Amino acid sequence: MILEQAVLQIKPDQSEVFEETFKEAQKIISSMSGYIKHDILKCVEEDDKYLLLVEWETIEDHEVGFRQSREYQEWKKLLHHFYDPFPTVHHYKSILV
Amino acid sequence: MILEQAVLQIKPDQSEVFEETFKEAQKIISSMSGYIKHDILKCVEEDDKYLLLVEWETIEDHEVGFRQSREYQEWKKLLHHFYDPFPTVHHYKSILV
Repeated sequence: MILEQAVLQIKPDQSEVFEETFKEAQKIISSMSGYIKHDILKCVEEDDKYLLLVEWETIEDHEVGFRQSREYQEWKKLLHHFYDPFPTVHHYKSILV
Repeated sequence: MILEQAVLQIKPDQSEVFEETFKEAQKIISSMSGYIKHDILKCVEEDDKYLLLVEWETIEDHEVGFRQSREYQEWKKLLHHFYDPFPTVHHYKSILV
């Protein structure tokens, strides 16, 4: 299992629309091959900051299977315009399992 | 449920010892009131970078119950010397539940 992690900084005054849009967009990611589960969380300390966590079976399921798909173009169109700056994505692997 | 999130940057050449020490130290956090679960994950893209995720029932369980406890002093002694820079901790709340 690989965890994709990104801190999303949303443009001012767009958090409410971002949350609504994300709830639609998550149907895209959830349908992809190798997808296990995801969560989107709102920061307690800072406005307009969110944490996106997505579990994938392999890193290729995210980087190749999803990012090179037709579905990614739709995901991008729905969500990328909310971000400023554009987020850095990292992948992590648990050392406990 | 509140998710505590911290990206931990470990001093060069100390990752192996950090991992061993963390496996001992996690017994401390797991015994605290309000603790639900945790994971420690190693970054795929960058050496010596880890992601700590801890689920707490409330933010006070972490910030008051844990951080003001005798057990925190032990946690700190075991782990804080590995970090450079000292990590910024954020708390997040899922918007999906």
